Amino acid sequence: MERKEEEVGRENGKAEATESSKDGSICGFDSLHRLLHASLEPHVFKEVSRLLLGLNCGRALESIAIPEPAKALSSKHDFDLQAYCFHADKELTREPRIVRVGLIQNSIALPTTAPFLDQKRAIFEKLKPIIDAAGASGVNILCLQEAWMMPFAFCTREKRWCELAEPVDGESTQLLQDLARKYNMVIISPILERDVKHGETLWNTAVIIGNHGNIIGKHRKNHIPRVGDFNESTYYMEGNTGHPVFETAYGKIAINICYGRHHPLNWLAFGLNGAEIVFNPSATVGELSEPMWPIEARNAAIANSYFVGSINRVGTEIFPNPFTSGDGKPQHADFGHFYGSSHFSAPDSSCTPSLSRYKDGLMISDMDLNLCRQLKDKWGFRMTARYELYAEMLAHYVKPNFEPQVISDPLLHKNPS
Amino acid sequence: MERKEEEVGRENGKAEATESSKDGSICGFDSLHRLLHASLEPHVFKEVSRLLLGLNCGRALESIAIPEPAKALSSKHDFDLQAYCFHADKELTREPRIVRVGLIQNSIALPTTAPFLDQKRAIFEKLKPIIDAAGASGVNILCLQEAWMMPFAFCTREKRWCELAEPVDGESTQLLQDLARKYNMVIISPILERDVKHGETLWNTAVIIGNHGNIIGKHRKNHIPRVGDFNESTYYMEGNTGHPVFETAYGKIAINICYGRHHPLNWLAFGLNGAEIVFNPSATVGELSEPMWPIEARNAAIANSYFVGSINRVGTEIFPNPFTSGDGKPQHADFGHFYGSSHFSAPDSSCTPSLSRYKDGLMISDMDLNLCRQLKDKWGFRMTARYELYAEMLAHYVKPNFEPQVISDPLLHKNPS
Repeated sequence: MERKEEEVGRENGKAEATESSKDGSICGFDSLHRLLHASLEPHVFKEVSRLLLGLNCGRALESIAIPEPAKALSSKHDFDLQAYCFHADKELTREPRIVRVGLIQNSIALPTTAPFLDQKRAIFEKLKPIIDAAGASGVNILCLQEAWMMPFAFCTREKRWCELAEPVDGESTQLLQDLARKYNMVIISPILERDVKHGETLWNTAVIIGNHGNIIGKHRKNHIPRVGDFNESTYYMEGNTGHPVFETAYGKIAINICYGRHHPLNWLAFGLNGAEIVFNPSATVGELSEPMWPIEARNAAIANSYFVGSINRVGTEIFPNPFTSGDGKPQHADFGHFYGSSHFSAPDSSCTPSLSRYKDGLMISDMDLNLCRQLKDKWGFRMTARYELYAEMLAHYVKPNFEPQVISDPLLHKNPS
Repeated sequence: MERKEEEVGRENGKAEATESSKDGSICGFDSLHRLLHASLEPHVFKEVSRLLLGLNCGRALESIAIPEPAKALSSKHDFDLQAYCFHADKELTREPRIVRVGLIQNSIALPTTAPFLDQKRAIFEKLKPIIDAAGASGVNILCLQEAWMMPFAFCTREKRWCELAEPVDGESTQLLQDLARKYNMVIISPILERDVKHGETLWNTAVIIGNHGNIIGKHRKNHIPRVGDFNESTYYMEGNTGHPVFETAYGKIAINICYGRHHPLNWLAFGLNGAEIVFNPSATVGELSEPMWPIEARNAAIANSYFVGSINRVGTEIFPNPFTSGDGKPQHADFGHFYGSSHFSAPDSSCTPSLSRYKDGLMISDMDLNLCRQLKDKWGFRMTARYELYAEMLAHYVKPNFEPQVISDPLLHKNPS
């Protein structure tokens, strides 16, 4: 059943342009924000934005100027480039702590039938001008998408894709270390990790590279999906690195990888450890998750008083061997459309528009990290949270003899009077 | 500074009609759904609805027929009346478990200067035709708004409003017990509770009345706000009833009162105890929370695989004595606009449109409770949640000597190379 390399390649290209029938979208739009902007009268658009982007008090969405070299790279390499700004109040005892943060989303670069090392290096070559644009824009912290160095092949259940796994200090990290040093930029690099010292164990891991090109540490994905074609549990297990917060030159950051965004406790634990920005590098498809995508990120930012950067890959990846999806439908060779839509959410419930559903992109935002504590002081979620109650509740819940707190109507089986 | 009763009364009336400048809204619209429906081309509206209402797979929003007597009551008493339907897959081993659920939002009925008992009884008289409409529509479970039997006077910090508190089996409960019996309907009645047996303690409490008119039990609000004019901590303390789930004739329900919706752990605990529908009776105002309103409810429904019914009161309530808000602004006599917008969220990430931002209303939805387990089986959030990890994390966090898990860049204070 192996398909010819050029056929697969052509389909990958076509998919990004016109796959409206398969991507979950009804009218093939590029982003919700642009669709509404093009369709609504200005005063109605302003009101809709107030609610959807959390721009209360008549605030307008504020974009920031993008330097010409970055714009030129965006035109030349045809990637979406957007830049916004989150403000905080001026404080009396602290200076503003404004950092510029970037998110990159991208499709793969070669057909999935190409030699593995070529595929990885071609993705890196594709990423390089986007990272250069981030560097030219003065981005301080940059996060790439989940398993950026490979197609998201976990749908196939084929073990040969394991060969793409690398140690934390492997080739992909090394390529990015140079750029981190060059641009004085913290880079978060989510890869498929091979832990050679622990018997060739595989992990889904984010490597945190400091702005001097040094490796600060790693975080391994805490929660592994078993839904749809997300057959990741075939490849790696739940992470063993806890919920670390990385203190970088530009702020305290943490990484909640992909499916971990469905777990409010995971978001919470990064918050309790002091994160000011939590990145959610992901790979997820339209039919499964698109309406949930902005909800979970914004809820996490609100509930935990920190910023969230959400990244999803783009495009449709066609694999050489068709597979079934456990849904009774015929075999097929793709995972569905990765709908991009990377964006930022802020602790004050506001958010940016999203990057394109179809194109590679770089989303930039300035954020004053003072906003995190300001929201904690305003809403008091930490202080009103009664963690003792929940520590006790969970300790009880995990016991085999747990009994839920249920109060039954004593007249449950009585007929209506 | 006491103001004349008729002046206050006039302002209350006016506020509901034309308060667009004070309610946070820019163009005084009635509901986001209606605004978009009126402004967008049908194919664009369909796409926007797919994302905003979670109508994936090209599904259309499905409304259900409302019986004529209910419609007549809605016209006569000028309240918004909407009814929708959530479907579940047909199962092989269980029959569908379809229940009809209702949410009521309302403004107060008399000026806040009227005698207290008159105010309470006038609200009940106003509610009665809306409850009758729910009964005529065959609603099985009905939830009223937070502290429905009084104006939301906690902004004032005046202790005289405590007089409105009632025992769990007081007048307000008794009035509703008759209707519960008449309509064979479970009614959730959120009141200001006076606990006479415990030294006249006040609580913010939901009374759960069974479909035979019996009192099944009560739940006391777990988390108390200290934000904006929400001076509720002046009046009552954090609840002591845990996270009970009430097993009623129509399903397992729980109540997350108002500010508790900002706490993912609170939502979680009701879920771990087995809730299939969680109600969030609230009172919240536009400038403070409107963009967060749909986010938190939908996230809770998704993360916990249950239905959520969200209720917010409507209108602007003018109090006799002006008060300040700790924001440097001049004294004023109202809390801001309660923006209504009551709605349902489902575990599959879909939701209904919202009731009016200005009018009283009854929101009805049919829901097949089988959907809860179907989503658990599909997404596996419970099984992938690693509760042991979080039980341990929280046990550690609540200790005075807790140290966050922070990994600092060793080159943190090095200058750029």
